[in-house]
Amino acid sequence: MSLIVPVILCGGSGTRLWPLSRPARPKPFLPLIGEATLFEAALARVSDPALFAAPLVVTGAGLFELVESQAPGGHVIVEPAARNTAPAIALAAQRLPPDTVMLVCPSDHHIADIPAWLAAVVRARTLAEKGFLVAFGIAPTRPETGYGYIERGAPEGEGYRIARFIEKPPLADAEAYLSSGGFSWNGGIFMFRAGNFLEELARYRPEMAKAVADPAGFEAIAGESIDYAVMEQTSRAAMVEADMGWSDIGNWQSLRDARAAEADAQGNVVRGAADLIDCRKVMVQSDGPRVSVVGLEDVIVVVDGGEVLVTSAAGAANVGKLKGAKGE
Amino acid sequence: MSLIVPVILCGGSGTRLWPLSRPARPKPFLPLIGEATLFEAALARVSDPALFAAPLVVTGAGLFELVESQAPGGHVIVEPAARNTAPAIALAAQRLPPDTVMLVCPSDHHIADIPAWLAAVVRARTLAEKGFLVAFGIAPTRPETGYGYIERGAPEGEGYRIARFIEKPPLADAEAYLSSGGFSWNGGIFMFRAGNFLEELARYRPEMAKAVADPAGFEAIAGESIDYAVMEQTSRAAMVEADMGWSDIGNWQSLRDARAAEADAQGNVVRGAADLIDCRKVMVQSDGPRVSVVGLEDVIVVVDGGEVLVTSAAGAANVGKLKGAKGE
Repeated sequence: MSLIVPVILCGGSGTRLWPLSRPARPKPFLPLIGEATLFEAALARVSDPALFAAPLVVTGAGLFELVESQAPGGHVIVEPAARNTAPAIALAAQRLPPDTVMLVCPSDHHIADIPAWLAAVVRARTLAEKGFLVAFGIAPTRPETGYGYIERGAPEGEGYRIARFIEKPPLADAEAYLSSGGFSWNGGIFMFRAGNFLEELARYRPEMAKAVADPAGFEAIAGESIDYAVMEQTSRAAMVEADMGWSDIGNWQSLRDARAAEADAQGNVVRGAADLIDCRKVMVQSDGPRVSVVGLEDVIVVVDGGEVLVTSAAGAANVGKLKGAKGE
Repeated sequence: MSLIVPVILCGGSGTRLWPLSRPARPKPFLPLIGEATLFEAALARVSDPALFAAPLVVTGAGLFELVESQAPGGHVIVEPAARNTAPAIALAAQRLPPDTVMLVCPSDHHIADIPAWLAAVVRARTLAEKGFLVAFGIAPTRPETGYGYIERGAPEGEGYRIARFIEKPPLADAEAYLSSGGFSWNGGIFMFRAGNFLEELARYRPEMAKAVADPAGFEAIAGESIDYAVMEQTSRAAMVEADMGWSDIGNWQSLRDARAAEADAQGNVVRGAADLIDCRKVMVQSDGPRVSVVGLEDVIVVVDGGEVLVTSAAGAANVGKLKGAKGE
């Protein structure tokens, strides 16, 4: 069986981890969990030479130096412009022999359970080799309204057909999905043969499929995600279920939760100088100044680059609305 | 009627407003409410020349320069050592003619209602001129367990005799006092003739009364408050009731409450650079760095001198336990 080619997507910016993540130092390149950056961890997850070929990293010109510094000697494809995931994946696919099985992964997610991850990869490969375009369905742990969902269809080999994709749902729907057991989060991880992806792209987005072949055309593409452009259209969509401690580290609350291994007996997580009295589930992160916290629960304090952020865990989703996060 | 001599006590330190208040910059000398410092406001409250003579300030050697800078040309008595309020008041009393009515005031409290304050002063004077040692009984607004209480006794002129002094009570007692209506907070404000005070001090603390007369003796005094040494002992204790928007600004919560005039429609109070989203009753004070707060209620954030404090309003009473507040 031939090796899987990992394609690591390393773009985007995101402001919800402000003030830590900034345009010049985006989320994939920060050591958010443990010592490694999320990008380094993404590479490490696909480093078993019995399973994976050398990875391809797709990134923007602005991040090229950061990518090179954390993945020296890797194969890097620089996008002519940022046009969302469908064109980025096509850039990689058209460089590979059509039979190559590609594993498409974001570079800014966290996966706690590596054996479960590898088991899902192996299951997904059996479907990809049958010509399916395979999504990884993340076992949901809460009625999250910020993610897309995948509804499980009929069994298919080591996975399932996909009954439907669901955009970010209202809370009542998310709660129903969670209790039904037939729904997964769409974690943005996909596997397919390069040729199958390009065929389906040409079928459903013929202009995009042509445009990605030349740099001038690429810039003119209307950006679109792989979900919209291909996965929701194709009749060859399948999924594997993956219960692997996944988190997109989408905001400070999910980062705190993903740092459970660093928490003390009261659930407090501290990086940097801090002094906590009567606190529970408080996270402090400081690049220098001491942070003293008294009598709080479920609060996150971040001091970085002369900015001070204090947010409730529940409010973390709104950090991107702050003036500082918007660069004001 | 002769003028009242204000005696402003300007000592102590206090750590509960850390990191703003520090040994070199104690609470009376900070502009906590409005533009003036608490010390300047204390002087301004006794500045009506129809009622008050020039004030005497009693302070320690370490604070002399701060006192001079904020009260240029005032009469300052420097204590040989910090020995609590009874010896400090005696130092001032022995410099005054025995018939002089003294008004003893802390320098680090806030009084919002100046007309009510002056009315209480005028009532207290009538009792002081009859030879009573008069305490100002502050109208309580909550079952505070951090203050001493005074129980009202029989009517006496424009005030009352004092039935008893009560030390910091348990919560159940404080609640009973509040609902009874017959109890006041002991705000540490007193009025009496200098001679009457010294007579009662000599009666109940004869060694202290002798020792305050010479500097070497002063240092050997066991420090004691006027409450213990005199007011709780004397049979000439009286009180006037005072409902005057008083606060001892004892911690960050009471400072936030005393800054009600600075609050926005959501009850947030901001000094310095701040950006608040979905906040209620949050106070931010920063000496420079921007403070961004999301989704919190009843939380206080202070950035000063490179220290960051985040406390719940209820936790503010424990700020003094922080390492930073203890100088560690």
